[in-house]
Amino acid sequence: MLGTLLKPDLEELIHAKEWDALREVLTEFDAPDRAELIEHCEVQEAALVFRILPRDTAGETFEYLPLEMQTRLVETLGDEQLKRVLDEMAPDDRTRLLEELPGEVTRRLVATLSPDQRKIASALLGYPERTAGRAMTPEYVTIRPEMSVTEAIEQIRVQAKNSETISVVYVVDQRGRLLDDLRLSTLVLAEPGAKVADLEDRQLVSILATATNEEVVAIFEKYDRVALPVTDTRGQLLGIITIDDVLDVQSEEATEDIQKLGGTEALDAPYLDVTFGEMIRKRGGWLAVLFLGEMLTATAMQYYEHQIERAVVLALFVPLIISSGGNSGSQATSIMIRALALRDVELGEWSRVLRREVMVGLTLGAILGAIGFLRIVLWPHHTTVYGPHFVMIAGAVAISLVGVVLFGTLTGSMLPFLLRRLRLDPATASAPFVATLVDVTGLVIYFSVASAMLRGILL
Amino acid sequence: MLGTLLKPDLEELIHAKEWDALREVLTEFDAPDRAELIEHCEVQEAALVFRILPRDTAGETFEYLPLEMQTRLVETLGDEQLKRVLDEMAPDDRTRLLEELPGEVTRRLVATLSPDQRKIASALLGYPERTAGRAMTPEYVTIRPEMSVTEAIEQIRVQAKNSETISVVYVVDQRGRLLDDLRLSTLVLAEPGAKVADLEDRQLVSILATATNEEVVAIFEKYDRVALPVTDTRGQLLGIITIDDVLDVQSEEATEDIQKLGGTEALDAPYLDVTFGEMIRKRGGWLAVLFLGEMLTATAMQYYEHQIERAVVLALFVPLIISSGGNSGSQATSIMIRALALRDVELGEWSRVLRREVMVGLTLGAILGAIGFLRIVLWPHHTTVYGPHFVMIAGAVAISLVGVVLFGTLTGSMLPFLLRRLRLDPATASAPFVATLVDVTGLVIYFSVASAMLRGILL
Repeated sequence: MLGTLLKPDLEELIHAKEWDALREVLTEFDAPDRAELIEHCEVQEAALVFRILPRDTAGETFEYLPLEMQTRLVETLGDEQLKRVLDEMAPDDRTRLLEELPGEVTRRLVATLSPDQRKIASALLGYPERTAGRAMTPEYVTIRPEMSVTEAIEQIRVQAKNSETISVVYVVDQRGRLLDDLRLSTLVLAEPGAKVADLEDRQLVSILATATNEEVVAIFEKYDRVALPVTDTRGQLLGIITIDDVLDVQSEEATEDIQKLGGTEALDAPYLDVTFGEMIRKRGGWLAVLFLGEMLTATAMQYYEHQIERAVVLALFVPLIISSGGNSGSQATSIMIRALALRDVELGEWSRVLRREVMVGLTLGAILGAIGFLRIVLWPHHTTVYGPHFVMIAGAVAISLVGVVLFGTLTGSMLPFLLRRLRLDPATASAPFVATLVDVTGLVIYFSVASAMLRGILL
Repeated sequence: MLGTLLKPDLEELIHAKEWDALREVLTEFDAPDRAELIEHCEVQEAALVFRILPRDTAGETFEYLPLEMQTRLVETLGDEQLKRVLDEMAPDDRTRLLEELPGEVTRRLVATLSPDQRKIASALLGYPERTAGRAMTPEYVTIRPEMSVTEAIEQIRVQAKNSETISVVYVVDQRGRLLDDLRLSTLVLAEPGAKVADLEDRQLVSILATATNEEVVAIFEKYDRVALPVTDTRGQLLGIITIDDVLDVQSEEATEDIQKLGGTEALDAPYLDVTFGEMIRKRGGWLAVLFLGEMLTATAMQYYEHQIERAVVLALFVPLIISSGGNSGSQATSIMIRALALRDVELGEWSRVLRREVMVGLTLGAILGAIGFLRIVLWPHHTTVYGPHFVMIAGAVAISLVGVVLFGTLTGSMLPFLLRRLRLDPATASAPFVATLVDVTGLVIYFSVASAMLRGILL
């Protein structure tokens, strides 16, 4: 909104080279709004803007830019400017950028950082992707249990500038092991002379550096904290994760799941920022794989060619039957993928889900089967359209529907469990993937039922 | 985890009627963990537990229970117990519960509240569902601009107990209009004698009470704040929304979108908590509607029955072709639904998206068409299987694929825009819904192309 409104003014100032006015206008904004303004500029203009912004403002603004604009700016800004910006970025946001860049560029950039920041960046990049270690920031305030409240608040004042948040501070022993976390509000409300060790706060909740993003989101959802400490297995405090970053992670995870469910690779960028080639690669890849799988339907149909020749009426219901299997599979897979992601259902509960889905699949199949039966039997001029044996045909369609819907439901609900068991992402069980699996089997079910029921009558 | 581990101990204490021991064990836990323990109990046991918990502990624990357990407890607890629990609940969590219950129960419960809480509950319930007004809590700390920092901190101490958070406090004028928000940390780090009005903090960001949940999530994602004030159009401060609630809202919105995308109604509860009847209703409803739509394929096939009779080979490729349309539509719709939800793409950009998707659809169609063509032409014994005109058949299949994939891509990408334009949820454009739309058209495209190309040869 803001971006599109003010962009003309901004461009005017850039073209007129009114650097002082530009800096003045821009520093009036909050970092997220400034980022939104710059986001709508050409990358060359954005680079100019970054050159004139004060050092800390530049770093903070850069943090709020979309990843894709950040990577393009990295290519455009000179090394000196880049160092200025990267040195001032919050380490967690910087890690996200560095992991996105090609390995070579990352190494070059890390080398340009100041020695302190270089150490931090290398440490964070040492953790596996999509873990708490990658998402945390080492910028937090620590206090000691033997401090008084007054001393602790003094310590916070000193460390505040270099911290992502001071809403929560961390009590550590002399070896850096995490003992507790305390809200600033607890300190402010406490007696000034009280000892930190004696302050009562909530129970300590901490995250292991190796926890996955999904686990991090689940812990934050459960405990409603604004920040949580990250430790190694020995309890050494390594960093903190703040809830605003969790909000972003949660949104990204959902985006990925939704895109995968639709049968594409995750786009990893806003729709309009994905290049045409990338879009074709991410959609075409899966589409081609699914197409190859779907070719089995032609082979299956070929197998039943003689039945179709003798009773073309059978072919009429092929799309109806296979799509019903695909739809029920798509329903089941989307429900299970989400239930697994939210931990509503655990991997070990697969057999409980299976029993339930057998009942659901049979019931849904029976409903569709009944509708299908009535559709054929009550159709005007059914004898002309479907021949004298229309009741038997309707029966074959109805029974096939029960089988196909049951099979679709079971495939759709169990595949996410299987994928999770194989340590793959359950969301890979996309709606089109399940539909493809179900289509071939659906054909086999349909023609087998029809052959059995119509032998000697039509076939 | 915790719940299943400790549940036996808990049950033992309940059966032995060891109320004091039980209370002692339970109060040792943090509210989220206590809720997890109780969540795994039978509702009768849970009600017993609530009877023995201290008043404020009971209220806080109740807040962390899943909505479904809350509503069942409402039916089980006596009015006196309920009043105790509801009075102590945070108003925003209470609103979520009250809006879930049948209107009659809600009215009865609101009547049992203390006069203060009754006023609050009625006010919050006055806002439309899924808006900031429903999600906010009126429990926050206000300070006045003319206060000194010391006075402000004193005021915070006084109001702290009745506030959801004191990490951020709100500066209002004498008529309750919102002037600014200040982080507690800003106050703590400021000179004790400084005036509140002179403290520099971030820009004021506020939310209108009528903003939708989706808008609230977008603002929090953009500004990275832990709490934001909610005002009416005149700037009167009405309440605040805290980020932990936004995390829940965001997760719910994603769950709904994923379930709808799969072609079910949103389940609105964890998988295992949905009753069998409810599950059938939420899945069977859409499945039946889609089935009725899909019946048109049988009508379309019937229309081309004579072509199939003359060239059964045409029927072989029906599943392959319609599923390719469905898959490309499913990809496009999931990508657009998410892009619209994240505001990566605005409603007004539909024509830009359309132009892009035409190119994407043609390219993807060409890729599948090429694979399909080669599959038929290079198949072993193609003349026996497909007859002497296999090249023409391959050509018809390839050209149909381009048309069907293009149509699928365009339907899938434009339908979410159309639904948003009609003020419906774009996520209603589920993968199965798009597939159903595309199937019928896909058949028409395929048989039209085949008729045109094979007339005089096969037909």
